[in-house]
Amino acid sequence: MVYKKITLIGSSDESFDAAVDDAVERAESTLDNVHWVEVKEMGVELASVDGREYQAEVEVAFKLE
Amino acid sequence: MVYKKITLIGSSDESFDAAVDDAVERAESTLDNVHWVEVKEMGVELASVDGREYQAEVEVAFKLE
Amino acid sequence: MVYKKITLIGSSDESFDAAVDDAVERAESTLDNVHWVEVKEMGVELASVDGREYQAEVEVAFKLE
Amino acid sequence: MVYKKITLIGSSDESFDAAVDDAVERAESTLDNVHWVEVKEMGVELASVDGREYQAEVEVAFKLE
Amino acid sequence: MVYKKITLIGSSDESFDAAVDDAVERAESTLDNVHWVEVKEMGVELASVDGREYQAEVEVAFKLE
Amino acid sequence: MVYKKITLIGSSDESFDAAVDDAVERAESTLDNVHWVEVKEMGVELASVDGREYQAEVEVAFKLE
Amino acid sequence: MVYKKITLIGSSDESFDAAVDDAVERAESTLDNVHWVEVKEMGVELASVDGREYQAEVEVAFKLE
Amino acid sequence: MVYKKITLIGSSDESFDAAVDDAVERAESTLDNVHWVEVKEMGVELASVDGREYQAEVEVAFKLE
Amino acid sequence: MVYKKITLIGSSDESFDAAVDDAVERAESTLDNVHWVEVKEMGVELASVDGREYQAEVEVAFKLE
Amino acid sequence: MVYKKITLIGSSDESFDAAVDDAVERAESTLDNVHWVEVKEMGVELASVDGREYQAEVEVAFKLE
Amino acid sequence: MVYKKITLIGSSDESFDAAVDDAVERAESTLDNVHWVEVKEMGVELASVDGREYQAEVEVAFKLE
Amino acid sequence: MVYKKITLIGSSDESFDAAVDDAVERAESTLDNVHWVEVKEMGVELASVDGREYQAEVEVAFKLE
Repeated sequence: MVYKKITLIGSSDESFDAAVDDAVERAESTLDNVHWVEVKEMGVELASVDGREYQAEVEVAFKLE
Repeated sequence: MVYKKITLIGSSDESFDAAVDDAVERAESTLDNVHWVEVKEMGVELASVDGREYQAEVEVAFKLE
Repeated sequence: MVYKKITLIGSSDESFDAAVDDAVERAESTLDNVHWVEVKEMGVELASVDGREYQAEVEVAFKLE
Repeated sequence: MVYKKITLIGSSDESFDAAVDDAVERAESTLDNVHWVEVKEMGVELASVDGREYQAEVEVAFKLE
Repeated sequence: MVYKKITLIGSSDESFDAAVDDAVERAESTLDNVHWVEVKEMGVELASVDGREYQAEVEVAFKLE
Repeated sequence: MVYKKITLIGSSDESFDAAVDDAVERAESTLDNVHWVEVKEMGVELASVDGREYQAEVEVAFKLE
Repeated sequence: MVYKKITLIGSSDESFDAAVDDAVERAESTLDNVHWVEVKEMGVELASVDGREYQAEVEVAFKLE
Repeated sequence: MVYKKITLIGSSDESFDAAVDDAVERAESTLDNVHWVEVKEMGVELASVDGREYQAEVEVAFKLE
Repeated sequence: MVYKKITLIGSSDESFDAAVDDAVERAESTLDNVHWVEVKEMGVELASVDGREYQAEVEVAFKLE
Repeated sequence: MVYKKITLIGSSDESFDAAVDDAVERAESTLDNVHWVEVKEMGVELASVDGREYQAEVEVAFKLE
Repeated sequence: MVYKKITLIGSSDESFDAAVDDAVERAESTLDNVHWVEVKEMGVELASVDGREYQAEVEVAFKLE
Repeated sequence: MVYKKITLIGSSDESFDAAVDDAVERAESTLDNVHWVEVKEMGVELASVDGREYQAEVEVAFKLE
């Protein structure tokens, strides 16, 4: 049994929870067997967006078949 | 005056804030004089639960008598 | 083009998102050209406050003119 | 000459050496030109398995053509 | 559901695997519901022992009831 | 032979050495077989005390029987 | 909007700048929407090459569509 | 004798050396007694600029009078 | 309530305690509401001074009004 | 009593334990009073060897006379 | 101009300052041109000594001729 | 086969590349079998020199015979 981990950055104009969910949803839409997610960094982008964009960098672990 | 720190991992199917609160409530139900909490890790468990389980590893500092 | 980064700690009795927002609002009220924010630490103060005070230490990057 | 690194987690019910080998074998079965492997984390899973599952998170470096 | 983590250092005159097992066995003999173990440090003591003593510092996570 | 490590924060209005000693003395008054101590953090509290309170966070290792 | 990050190691017999450029060029030749690059490690290989090979390990962030 | 450290991010479309120099020059134009600089992060911005913008985050230490 | 943190390096030809005190005194002479100090680095300068100069790099946290 | 630490990288085509032992044996053959060893990194070299070469980077502490 | 750094661990039954001084004195008795020292770790040995032995691991930088 | 690593700091009034080269050349002039170099820190000295002195701290790995 081997897992692979990839790094995604999700975003949301609402909250950090939603930014993590954004990355999780992307992972689950393209990968089977996503097992867990680790949050690595959180930040807020202000200059290039209207208002605030909450961002969360996560590592996504999924089981290889 | 000496403090002790212990490490707890709280969880919630709602949010990271609620996962931290889960650990804080556990600490306060069994320890007197809890002074502060530091968040060390955050993650989401997906494989072994229905939906998503937000998890937060925290260090809890309390004053020894 | 040179950016400068300063370190602020925001707080909220509601949530970590609000604690980060607290620091962002302070930064934007006194600095022009705030570009982004990086979350460095999160914690909860319990002993010296009523209830819980969520705290977030952030680095704020702004463009120097 | 450019290398790419990916992150795998191998497992074994025998030893950490075998957990690393598990990840190396998976990498070599699907990638050409695997050059080296760096061990990043080691742990043991107990709750969801019979006995003990030794796990090793590794970064695998391979040469891109 | 809340987990607690404690830090143990196991030892063996045979191997690092056996040093980790030593700590795991100690944890399981006194704690219910040990879920997983993370290896934090490994070393070898030479001066105060005959031969070599392999040591492994681990964090043991168990579920609180 | 298994060691356990716990985390204590000692304090002193005199010096960092005395803050470490404070934690060591607390550990030795309640634990047998304290073997060594590692200093993890040092700081000074100013706002909630008269004068200065030197603080030292340490990990204390003791042998389990 | 979700970003993905991958890890590449570029090389050059000229300079570290050229080693980073080497990785950037590889990324841009196979990926659309490369947004930024973070330098993680730098080193020089001497034994297996003629002269010196400057190497740079970078994380490349690109926008997923 | 007390030093203060501030964090600046310099940039250049040429090289990392020039990005560090950019931050050093900014520091020296507004501060007396700049003593040394430590490089903390290096990266390349691609999406929001023409070509490549090399960036270097540095800590600048200067003597307070 | 927002705190700001700045980085100072204090020095003393006597001891590390005195080097930390040197930075604290400088902070308190120019800032109101200094709340706490975290020690980040300690070192000794030998080449450019007579004897030894103990140095301590600290982060000073103070409340913004 | 002063200790010195040096950094060695041992190797083995068998296991990580044997790679650590390789470095320990080298240290003990040339140094008196080797007291302990700390494991810093572990990896596997694949490209430049037949089969697998397990490598362990260790710090070796020995007492100076 | 090239500097070399070596790692020493000094000790004292008095204080951490004296443990650092112990390492500095050893370095200066055998090396010319010692320029500065960085403190890396501090700890207290209790089990193998009478009373307490304060220990400080330092990196010593000296100029090569 | 055992490697040893030593730590050198090279310098240049030209560039970081040249500062790394300075350390590499010193290593190769006194050591056989230098295999690779890892860059650990980069900085610029300003106060004690004319102009700027670029500095690079590196670890040099060489094969022991």
